Amino acid sequence: MSVGDFLFGRALRSSEEGAEKLGAAAGIPVFGLDGLSSAAYGPEAALALLIALGAAGVHYIVPITLSIVGLLVIVYFSYRQTIEAYPKGGGSYTVAGQNLGPFAGLLAAAALMTDYVLTAAVGISAGVGALVSAAPSLEKHTLALCLAILVLVTLINLRGSRETGIAFMVPTYAFVGTLLAIIGMGMYKSVAAGGHPTPVSPPPMWHAATATFGIWLALKAFASGCTAMTGVEAVSNGVSAFREPVVKTAQRTLTVIVGLLIAMLAGIAYLCRAYQIGATETGPGYQSVLSQLTAAVAGRSLFYFVTMGSVLTVLALSANTAFADFPRLCRLLAEDGYLPSPLAVRGRRLVYTVGISVLAVCCAALLILFGGVTDRLIPLYAVGAFLAFTLSQTGMVVHWRRVEGSRARLAMLVNALGAVATAVTVAIVATTKFLSGAWITTLVIPAIIAVMYATRRHYDEVNREIACPADLDLGGLNPPIVVLPIASWNKIARAGLQFAVKVSREIHILHVCTGDPDEMRDTWRKAVEEPMRRAGIPVPQLKEIRSPYRFVIQPIVDYVAELEKKWPDRQIAVIIPEFVEKHWYNYFLHNERATWLKSALLRRKNGRTVVINVPWRLDS
Amino acid sequence: MSVGDFLFGRALRSSEEGAEKLGAAAGIPVFGLDGLSSAAYGPEAALALLIALGAAGVHYIVPITLSIVGLLVIVYFSYRQTIEAYPKGGGSYTVAGQNLGPFAGLLAAAALMTDYVLTAAVGISAGVGALVSAAPSLEKHTLALCLAILVLVTLINLRGSRETGIAFMVPTYAFVGTLLAIIGMGMYKSVAAGGHPTPVSPPPMWHAATATFGIWLALKAFASGCTAMTGVEAVSNGVSAFREPVVKTAQRTLTVIVGLLIAMLAGIAYLCRAYQIGATETGPGYQSVLSQLTAAVAGRSLFYFVTMGSVLTVLALSANTAFADFPRLCRLLAEDGYLPSPLAVRGRRLVYTVGISVLAVCCAALLILFGGVTDRLIPLYAVGAFLAFTLSQTGMVVHWRRVEGSRARLAMLVNALGAVATAVTVAIVATTKFLSGAWITTLVIPAIIAVMYATRRHYDEVNREIACPADLDLGGLNPPIVVLPIASWNKIARAGLQFAVKVSREIHILHVCTGDPDEMRDTWRKAVEEPMRRAGIPVPQLKEIRSPYRFVIQPIVDYVAELEKKWPDRQIAVIIPEFVEKHWYNYFLHNERATWLKSALLRRKNGRTVVINVPWRLDS
Repeated sequence: MSVGDFLFGRALRSSEEGAEKLGAAAGIPVFGLDGLSSAAYGPEAALALLIALGAAGVHYIVPITLSIVGLLVIVYFSYRQTIEAYPKGGGSYTVAGQNLGPFAGLLAAAALMTDYVLTAAVGISAGVGALVSAAPSLEKHTLALCLAILVLVTLINLRGSRETGIAFMVPTYAFVGTLLAIIGMGMYKSVAAGGHPTPVSPPPMWHAATATFGIWLALKAFASGCTAMTGVEAVSNGVSAFREPVVKTAQRTLTVIVGLLIAMLAGIAYLCRAYQIGATETGPGYQSVLSQLTAAVAGRSLFYFVTMGSVLTVLALSANTAFADFPRLCRLLAEDGYLPSPLAVRGRRLVYTVGISVLAVCCAALLILFGGVTDRLIPLYAVGAFLAFTLSQTGMVVHWRRVEGSRARLAMLVNALGAVATAVTVAIVATTKFLSGAWITTLVIPAIIAVMYATRRHYDEVNREIACPADLDLGGLNPPIVVLPIASWNKIARAGLQFAVKVSREIHILHVCTGDPDEMRDTWRKAVEEPMRRAGIPVPQLKEIRSPYRFVIQPIVDYVAELEKKWPDRQIAVIIPEFVEKHWYNYFLHNERATWLKSALLRRKNGRTVVINVPWRLDS
Repeated sequence: MSVGDFLFGRALRSSEEGAEKLGAAAGIPVFGLDGLSSAAYGPEAALALLIALGAAGVHYIVPITLSIVGLLVIVYFSYRQTIEAYPKGGGSYTVAGQNLGPFAGLLAAAALMTDYVLTAAVGISAGVGALVSAAPSLEKHTLALCLAILVLVTLINLRGSRETGIAFMVPTYAFVGTLLAIIGMGMYKSVAAGGHPTPVSPPPMWHAATATFGIWLALKAFASGCTAMTGVEAVSNGVSAFREPVVKTAQRTLTVIVGLLIAMLAGIAYLCRAYQIGATETGPGYQSVLSQLTAAVAGRSLFYFVTMGSVLTVLALSANTAFADFPRLCRLLAEDGYLPSPLAVRGRRLVYTVGISVLAVCCAALLILFGGVTDRLIPLYAVGAFLAFTLSQTGMVVHWRRVEGSRARLAMLVNALGAVATAVTVAIVATTKFLSGAWITTLVIPAIIAVMYATRRHYDEVNREIACPADLDLGGLNPPIVVLPIASWNKIARAGLQFAVKVSREIHILHVCTGDPDEMRDTWRKAVEEPMRRAGIPVPQLKEIRSPYRFVIQPIVDYVAELEKKWPDRQIAVIIPEFVEKHWYNYFLHNERATWLKSALLRRKNGRTVVINVPWRLDS
């Protein structure tokens, strides 16, 4: 069993794709982790802005959450329709691109790509942050923990989609199960107590109010709460990963994810008001909203620790949704020529290995740059998601205009509603968060689009240049002029010369002297010239080239360039006898001149010289 | 002007070597920085061990320094003789190797190599440490400062020996000048005051004695003070770098270095006793001995700051001696086959570029590993130097035994005295410092020796295998069987096929299908088969290979392996049409399959297949 098999599992046949397809049960962990885990931070983000209102603030969480849930319902119906209309994967890129033109598609793609990288880094860092605040002695290992989780998520994703779904099932369902249990228990207690339950373990006291409620504050709280909605587009992006019947399975998965998310958001909001729980200031004494809520409902029992453990795990693993979607999005872009083609190649486990690796590297870079604490990145990442939502919904409106029938009219209405709602949200999010970082995305997204256009231009140019060749030209079939540089007469040089005489009669032997001329001439005469003369083959001249600057490669390249100039219609071939070592580390023992010479010859401007590598092995 | 020219200067001809040779004035900074700078820490290291004796301790510094100076004189005369006997560079490796056998030579070399790496890291870190203790706000940049100095020293050394000497002249002479001025001023004041001068700025008070003087303490203080002697062998290692008359110039350089060092050591010891200056504990309130001394003699005047500035500069630059000698030592070892041959290649500025780079990387690794504070490395590095001293002196004794005449007898006596003295010192240093880290060198040195033997064995094996080839074999001159893998019919494939028909009539075209078979056959018939048939050339078969695992490279390699098995006496050549991009970054846009295929074919076990790269350029 090789290391590769151990780490990634055996290679899968292309025909085994079916077995890698996801049902709803495995699809929820793969595509839903990001969306579901946002129940752990969305309400908290909204409540954090209400702290300034003191004890009164908690009353506003219910209407704010209801408006978020309303938006979620609109977006849900829109994406349900998108899945049906684009069963091959109706990500925002495809929908916007096909209906609004390539630029809208690239805009959506760039926004989503930025978002996925951010969401992966922020998710891991939030999970580790929760762990560290529970066990402060781990604080100095924050970055190491973040990177360890990143490596874990990356490795699991490289093993394949289905394996990922199975691996993340337990934490996902543990999280949903425990949180819904808490919510159910809390609601029962609350109703039984006439809406004013007594907390088992009371939340911290409120600070005095320092502000009053206003429209700007409400918008900011709404915008912050909207981070709970990122990840909803994930299913529509990856429809092709689902099992037959594809559309139904994907829709069912989306329904379950959104249903669970709504239940959790609404439940949390209701209980926050019932138990008078608000966000606490960061710093010493900080306690997350979910921690206060669980303690209030169930006390600091074993169940409290199980719940908090599952919250923490799911936060850390929420990065997984980015790992499911980012590579698929990159693959679509690569197939259209907007990103490098290796991103479209499926690896041994039928996943897009290069895309997964690129995401892991970007994410690691962000984590290292911010030392594992990515709080400052949070304001950046709802803009991208909502921009993509809006473009996708608008695209769907255009899509339905082309379809006849009253059902299409209704569907268009749903998507139009979604488009307007998400457009308004983009405006709110971008405005309220512009100064705290959202402006960075206005630089990053155009930069990504520029790179994508440049890539596409390059591929177009290459394809235009290499396409439609003339038929094979069979005039001038003279064998090439062969150049063979040798350092001394040994078995390696002999192997090179043996090959040379098989392909040509015009052979130039080059001997670059960096020091004193040596005594190769005698051996040469006996070992080479005599047998050749006997066999009646024209004897190649041994040309000594002096190199006052001790460069070995340049004189050879110069010689070849001159030959090319002298014989414009002949092909020149340089034979490079190459010493092949048994172990990679032995290559440090040689100066790798063969490699340098090869690349100097091949990458030379306007060169048309062919390079022939004749290998020579220690045991051959 | 290229970046290379700007950073390193224009390339030098081998014949320009003369102009790069050093006189004594430039030789002192190149080879003496380490030795001279040790005046700044040797006495301090000895005094630090006397702290426990309280005010009484300072009396013992004079006899301890005198014994160190005595040892220095013996070593000086020994190395003077070594220079004369080995004018091509009589490092410990050469002297021990030629007189005591290869193992002794390698032992000396390994000891010195370890020592050079340590001395470079410790020197830079000590200089930055002194700077940071003067300006504590810089403390958080310790590592960055260390690495910046390392880069500076590396770049200067890459520019050539002479350039290094000139660049470091000012700091070296400023250091020696200011320190000697302080010593002279202090001695004048001391004599004028009848041996009890009044300090301008008094040193800190003594702590009470916590120990009494004993032989073990004396030995430890002596061993610590001996760090002042590392770097004395530097000149003898690099004799070949000096100008004609080589021996005289090198000897004069050594005389000046040792003379200055003795004057400084003796002066510092005398003044420490006269002014009652001892080492202070590290931590807050720490003040270096030289700082106390300068303040006591001259007060905290401008002159104090100039002196301390030059001390700090010279400490930081003392790494330079390692950069002068380490690459030269590696070159000798590489020429003898004990280290990889690239270490023996002189770069554009006639210095051993690879050796300089290896030292820089090792040194950077140590600095990063220890965060720029390498105090813990100090105990490690006198052992290596004194071990090399002892082997070299013993080697010289053997050398003189072969020479006739009374002068040789006297010379032998001097070297024997040196051998005994340094052997005793090794024993003292190793014993007193064993537990605090010297034991590490007893693991590192054998490991280095093992690697050197393994390297030599590998080279011997390779040379034995490739040497004495049979004469050229001109039977079986059949052209090779050519294999050409193509992805589709385009200009790149066409270029490959054009070359194929020039060298062979037996051509196998491979087309690996990873997806649906495509419509290449029609084009193929028209563009390739028809013209070939018309020209009367055997038409190559287009072989389609299906690859269920989406691997493109393995099927080709397998096909070639089968051909090799089928035609054991024919040569197989695989043509790899290679797409050459204009810019390096464009290579990210392609999947570099050509490169992978090439290395899979060449590095294959028992393979004898030749690889032919046919380049294809965008503008060709």
